[in-house]
Amino acid sequence: MNQRPGNQLFDAYFTARDMREVFCDQGRVQAMLDVEAALARAQARVGLIPHTAVAPIEAACQAGFYDFAALGEAIATAGNSAIPLVKALGKHIAASDAEAERYVHLGATSQDVMDTGLVLQLRQALGLIERDLAQLGETLATQALRYVATPLAGRTWLQHATPVTLGMKIAGWLGAVSRSRQRLKELKPRLLVLQFGGASGTLAALGDQAMPIAEALAGELQLTLPEQPWHTQRDRLVEFGSVLGLIAGSLGKLGRDISLLMQTEAGEVFEPAAPGKGGSSTMPHKRNPVGAAVLIGAATRVPGLLSTLFSAMPQEHERSLGLWHAEWETLPEICCLVSGSLKQALLVADALEVDAERMARNLDLTQGLVLAEAVSIVLAQRVGRDTAHHLLEQCCKRAVAQQRHLRAVLGEEPQVTAQLSAAELDRLMDPANYLGQAHTWVERAVAEHSALTA
Amino acid sequence: MNQRPGNQLFDAYFTARDMREVFCDQGRVQAMLDVEAALARAQARVGLIPHTAVAPIEAACQAGFYDFAALGEAIATAGNSAIPLVKALGKHIAASDAEAERYVHLGATSQDVMDTGLVLQLRQALGLIERDLAQLGETLATQALRYVATPLAGRTWLQHATPVTLGMKIAGWLGAVSRSRQRLKELKPRLLVLQFGGASGTLAALGDQAMPIAEALAGELQLTLPEQPWHTQRDRLVEFGSVLGLIAGSLGKLGRDISLLMQTEAGEVFEPAAPGKGGSSTMPHKRNPVGAAVLIGAATRVPGLLSTLFSAMPQEHERSLGLWHAEWETLPEICCLVSGSLKQALLVADALEVDAERMARNLDLTQGLVLAEAVSIVLAQRVGRDTAHHLLEQCCKRAVAQQRHLRAVLGEEPQVTAQLSAAELDRLMDPANYLGQAHTWVERAVAEHSALTA
Amino acid sequence: MNQRPGNQLFDAYFTARDMREVFCDQGRVQAMLDVEAALARAQARVGLIPHTAVAPIEAACQAGFYDFAALGEAIATAGNSAIPLVKALGKHIAASDAEAERYVHLGATSQDVMDTGLVLQLRQALGLIERDLAQLGETLATQALRYVATPLAGRTWLQHATPVTLGMKIAGWLGAVSRSRQRLKELKPRLLVLQFGGASGTLAALGDQAMPIAEALAGELQLTLPEQPWHTQRDRLVEFGSVLGLIAGSLGKLGRDISLLMQTEAGEVFEPAAPGKGGSSTMPHKRNPVGAAVLIGAATRVPGLLSTLFSAMPQEHERSLGLWHAEWETLPEICCLVSGSLKQALLVADALEVDAERMARNLDLTQGLVLAEAVSIVLAQRVGRDTAHHLLEQCCKRAVAQQRHLRAVLGEEPQVTAQLSAAELDRLMDPANYLGQAHTWVERAVAEHSALTA
Amino acid sequence: MNQRPGNQLFDAYFTARDMREVFCDQGRVQAMLDVEAALARAQARVGLIPHTAVAPIEAACQAGFYDFAALGEAIATAGNSAIPLVKALGKHIAASDAEAERYVHLGATSQDVMDTGLVLQLRQALGLIERDLAQLGETLATQALRYVATPLAGRTWLQHATPVTLGMKIAGWLGAVSRSRQRLKELKPRLLVLQFGGASGTLAALGDQAMPIAEALAGELQLTLPEQPWHTQRDRLVEFGSVLGLIAGSLGKLGRDISLLMQTEAGEVFEPAAPGKGGSSTMPHKRNPVGAAVLIGAATRVPGLLSTLFSAMPQEHERSLGLWHAEWETLPEICCLVSGSLKQALLVADALEVDAERMARNLDLTQGLVLAEAVSIVLAQRVGRDTAHHLLEQCCKRAVAQQRHLRAVLGEEPQVTAQLSAAELDRLMDPANYLGQAHTWVERAVAEHSALTA
Repeated sequence: MNQRPGNQLFDAYFTARDMREVFCDQGRVQAMLDVEAALARAQARVGLIPHTAVAPIEAACQAGFYDFAALGEAIATAGNSAIPLVKALGKHIAASDAEAERYVHLGATSQDVMDTGLVLQLRQALGLIERDLAQLGETLATQALRYVATPLAGRTWLQHATPVTLGMKIAGWLGAVSRSRQRLKELKPRLLVLQFGGASGTLAALGDQAMPIAEALAGELQLTLPEQPWHTQRDRLVEFGSVLGLIAGSLGKLGRDISLLMQTEAGEVFEPAAPGKGGSSTMPHKRNPVGAAVLIGAATRVPGLLSTLFSAMPQEHERSLGLWHAEWETLPEICCLVSGSLKQALLVADALEVDAERMARNLDLTQGLVLAEAVSIVLAQRVGRDTAHHLLEQCCKRAVAQQRHLRAVLGEEPQVTAQLSAAELDRLMDPANYLGQAHTWVERAVAEHSALTA
Repeated sequence: MNQRPGNQLFDAYFTARDMREVFCDQGRVQAMLDVEAALARAQARVGLIPHTAVAPIEAACQAGFYDFAALGEAIATAGNSAIPLVKALGKHIAASDAEAERYVHLGATSQDVMDTGLVLQLRQALGLIERDLAQLGETLATQALRYVATPLAGRTWLQHATPVTLGMKIAGWLGAVSRSRQRLKELKPRLLVLQFGGASGTLAALGDQAMPIAEALAGELQLTLPEQPWHTQRDRLVEFGSVLGLIAGSLGKLGRDISLLMQTEAGEVFEPAAPGKGGSSTMPHKRNPVGAAVLIGAATRVPGLLSTLFSAMPQEHERSLGLWHAEWETLPEICCLVSGSLKQALLVADALEVDAERMARNLDLTQGLVLAEAVSIVLAQRVGRDTAHHLLEQCCKRAVAQQRHLRAVLGEEPQVTAQLSAAELDRLMDPANYLGQAHTWVERAVAEHSALTA
Repeated sequence: MNQRPGNQLFDAYFTARDMREVFCDQGRVQAMLDVEAALARAQARVGLIPHTAVAPIEAACQAGFYDFAALGEAIATAGNSAIPLVKALGKHIAASDAEAERYVHLGATSQDVMDTGLVLQLRQALGLIERDLAQLGETLATQALRYVATPLAGRTWLQHATPVTLGMKIAGWLGAVSRSRQRLKELKPRLLVLQFGGASGTLAALGDQAMPIAEALAGELQLTLPEQPWHTQRDRLVEFGSVLGLIAGSLGKLGRDISLLMQTEAGEVFEPAAPGKGGSSTMPHKRNPVGAAVLIGAATRVPGLLSTLFSAMPQEHERSLGLWHAEWETLPEICCLVSGSLKQALLVADALEVDAERMARNLDLTQGLVLAEAVSIVLAQRVGRDTAHHLLEQCCKRAVAQQRHLRAVLGEEPQVTAQLSAAELDRLMDPANYLGQAHTWVERAVAEHSALTA
Repeated sequence: MNQRPGNQLFDAYFTARDMREVFCDQGRVQAMLDVEAALARAQARVGLIPHTAVAPIEAACQAGFYDFAALGEAIATAGNSAIPLVKALGKHIAASDAEAERYVHLGATSQDVMDTGLVLQLRQALGLIERDLAQLGETLATQALRYVATPLAGRTWLQHATPVTLGMKIAGWLGAVSRSRQRLKELKPRLLVLQFGGASGTLAALGDQAMPIAEALAGELQLTLPEQPWHTQRDRLVEFGSVLGLIAGSLGKLGRDISLLMQTEAGEVFEPAAPGKGGSSTMPHKRNPVGAAVLIGAATRVPGLLSTLFSAMPQEHERSLGLWHAEWETLPEICCLVSGSLKQALLVADALEVDAERMARNLDLTQGLVLAEAVSIVLAQRVGRDTAHHLLEQCCKRAVAQQRHLRAVLGEEPQVTAQLSAAELDRLMDPANYLGQAHTWVERAVAEHSALTA
């Protein structure tokens, strides 16, 4: 059958290969076949089908045997992927064992196979994401500690405010990673469940053997047997999608911060360099934030995909048309985009280039104004809060008007120098001495990370 | 100050009053004032400010004192709601106690007050939603048990399939409710946390007293002190929004099912009637699903609002401009829409009108075809699966071609009557005898509900 | 280079092959190469590069020469698709003509090539969509006329209301198609424009020859030269996306209507049958709306994709990172989904199966209540509006209470029979006589369609 | 009736007052009443109702007479706003003229009144937006010309690239405004149409007078009579929403650019100052981009709201439940957010503060590297392109390695100085001499603007 034209030019940039392998055609088909094989085993165990049927069925349950292009065409007629696959599977088994063919897919409906197959894929996806998040958490914890005392300008509304530390900024990224790891742990029991209900969800075709088979099938696949089938109750899937959305958003924040810090005007933090990476031969100074683009891109795309999943929740009766279909490519796409985002975050976080000297220089861009608060507070203890506040306000205005450094203005103001020596003033105007709890936040975020890993 | 024109015509229909009260102007302002009052108490406890300052500050922290229209105008200049509120608060205190005014809002930044105030509102919102979900779960459990043995057509792709029960359908709605109750429990510790970081998040202005004050403030407000401030890490809020989105979606499914069952052609289930409700004087048969419209409407609106929250996650540095602002009305709107959806779901679920007789009649619309499977399975045990399957296929085709009932066709087919007596055929063709695990699903869903409540 | 795993299982179902060919890897690469070749021709025409360089460059501009997998990997380092392609192109030319290689891509920036290449693809996409929409309009016009006098129940809130005709329902679908054809006409001049600005958009590297080259390049590609480059002004693309979104939505409405009419309980209209299409061997009555699922599916997916495009509009300065990237796969995906939706709409609309007899039967499901209005209006002319209205209201209530047909109740009511003969009553209770302007709407919609095509 | 709690704290900041007045409760109710009054006039003109009925009906059609809170409660039962309003209207008329009451709302359905009322509101909204866009276009054209020759760094990927001008950047903003003005012109005939179809859309209740009344009604309201009613064909509304979305996106880009240029590290362009605006007493240097926050905020919120409108398009049969309801507050919200965005854009654009000196200084941040291209091109004409390119690459690398200015390095390189005098080098290294077509783009964008206005 004529292969459809490929559409993967940006896959290497936007997704991680291992995740795409979970959700490629081969991955989809294999997952459904794994369900069919497990069903045969379960039904043999319970005695519904002869044990001799299992081996031929299992042997045929290999994705490599099937023509995906032909399957794709058949899907367009059947309206789902399980009907043509089961047909092809039956034909394949019959070629070697006509008897065994009769025992395939007994009592199951297409959606059982598609949904449970999907859950098997999502289990793999979850594993990859948990692995990457754990690694990213570890890297960020290391970096937060490394830069725990590296001051840079705090920026609110993109304007300089009082100083922070790079470690604290990284700890913020880390905290979000830890929380999403916790979320994945919590949702896992809801997500990793069997879907098995037959035609309308009652398993009626299996009579009294229904529950034993359902339990055996869940056991075979190491999934939980949920309270009931969920063919049109899709909250489990959408919940997983939305935690992936939280991850995409948190990494988008990381990417935005880095891209802003990499600006030519800031020049404080850089993505690691690599030959040809984001460079330009005519503009050797240029270091395009090629990784941050992926993080921001994913954070821009996932929300729209997620809104599709949420919109598709009101599925009709016992099986939806159209809303169910809307999920098929959307949830996998979210998984793939988040995998790509994690891949880039790991690359960037691990080898972050930091220009602490530039940070120090930038901190002084306002000529000391961002530290006015520090002086004001100490002065307040000596001359009272109102007087101190008023004094500093005057000095700041003077500094701005005269385009001079606040330190110089303060050093000339008798009301100030009467209280604070030059050395004291120097100390107060050093950002390193006005970092508040920045160190504590790092410790606490790292502790939370460590507790999670332990 | 000139009041802005009101815009609440649909509030009574689309939202619950108690939730709107949480998120009205009064609610917002009071929540911020509660934070300011608690901050004063905390700082007095730690010794930063005199105990005498607390009472005058607390006394002024009543939303009723402030002109919301004037506040609204000032917000347009200040860029947030805390700056003008703190200014007005200060003025109000100063009018009675000039000294106390000096101790307001010490060391806090606007976002601390807005975010922590928001968390206080969200705690109320969460309480209302948990209350309504628990009530809805209870109602659905009761109804599922009540209709545990009421058969109706299963419908897949909006086509009749094998029978299900109304109890099982309701159990599906219940399961989703239970899962979202569990989710709210799990996220609560992440959501109900203090925001307190000062200008750039370091609490530097509070020096050594920062942590004791933070702890005292958290204690005063009965919030958890998180690992660090989260001014630009918004995953906690978006997570809450997304669980609300799951609830909206699950209730949308309930609404869609009911609206389909209420169709003139189906007429199986109805929203409770009320004088003037969804009626029409010229068309007395008409019973518009006025409640379902709210459920579907909310499930259509919340996904878009949610995608805004997710899109707004990559917030810059230590305080965002624009992305933060995009949250202010969006998350409250989600809360209000979900509250309205819950209100209607409670009304509808509690007094559902069920026409079991019509269900039975509709089940026969295909003239027995939906039960062919039931006959086929029993026959298979006597003549073998292939023969049985082939036989039924022929009879079904004949029934369709001749527009006759399958029972009649089967009764005339010697190969069938040789195996199955008329009485057996009647029993097999009775939907009540082909309901599989429908009863089990109800029991399991109710058990899960009960466990949650216990 | 190792090929990425394919992910096209649902392509045949959800997309049209010709559209996917426009947006496959081959299509993307060829479009960019077409721009490079045209640039060489334009620059030779203006005299910037020697005429002898053109042929070797053109010869190398064939997508087939390039290894897409290798290109994909290089994109992950470069951050866009043009840098590695131009590098590969240069190498390819140099292999046969080292001199010519020096004249490739002069004065252009990567985004010029990517965006103008995209516009070339969008021109093809637009052509396909216009072709399909014209065909769909033609089909719907034919069907609307065919069923111009076929009554069926009007349904509001999914409840029966006064009768409409199938022709009128189809005319509604047609009207939306015509409007979107008009929209595409209007946006075309905005969309089909050159992108050519060089490094920062000034074309400075081309000195005085910039404008002549820009004009020549536009001429070569038969695109308009816009008022200025639009590297970070993306409204042209998003506008196109949103008209595609309108098409998806309008077709979703068509799909929803058909899926509802196909319900077992309605059985009025069916998608055309095809061997194996949406069928079930055990349930021979089942005709799954396999095409409608695609229409509803696309209408559920496109809104989310569109919101990504809108979200990605605030692109920074002269070239964005991340927001631009978010467009690359999103707009093509919208094109492909809409192409699939159009393909299915054409299949469905062309061979719609209509059961007019069932429509008539269903129209009577309310036992005449939907025609009470018709009787009331005529009666009003004889006994006054209030009396007539009151009378009908009573009769309707009686009919409902007694579960009898309104015609029978009316026939027994002396106040009615005093005014209306049995024949008159029969005529009034015939839906075919209460269709108002249904015919006119069809004519007007068809006329609008014809005017558009003329 | 008890007023619902107000929720308008951010209205002054996020919306324009005149737009909110269009979409407040009073605006909604008045628009529906305007339709009822026009319907009476039209029906009297055609002779369906007595002329004497018109004046009493018109007199009652004043929103001020009605209790919005009571109306809101009644909506919750009725499921739409027209039923209770018509009831209240009837009661009001009857109080003074019992006869006239009988002629209200004849032959119309609730949705006719709601939709046509909405179109009347949208006509006002459109007028406001066109007015503001025209004004914004004028302001931007003036500013683009004013700064036509003011160089600043071009920035791609947030990295410095070759220079552009502020005028050119503004011209980019202007171009998007002009295109959206054109779009509004084009969609106007589709949007400003009557909705009038009666119960199911056929106008059957009006018999032969249906079309004359429809035409008269359209005439009364100065709306176009469309080819047919559009109760469930919502593309007209969604199209308008999506052009508003384009405007929000384009203004979001303007806001993002300004917020980036206002960064403490850039300091090139500022929102106009105003007392208390975005300021901080402790940090006098801080100028929060309070207006840009609104532009970015709206560009973040509108995409989600729009996706709701698109999602709500597949409306069932002749009147939808839930999907129609999802529009009611969503489209007005989009109008209001865009009005607020326009208001802020006008404020910001009109009084933009520009620091051209800082722009010049920032342009030199890379120590001349952004102008290497300029030197390379001239040199190429003397020593050949390859040699020139290689030479510049070496000099750039040297400049970076030695942290020296490229001008100095070039001045010491004999191969360069052999070709270019010091004066020539100075001229080439002056950004003002490497602005390419920046001037042309401004002229073209302004010409397009002028043509539109003429």
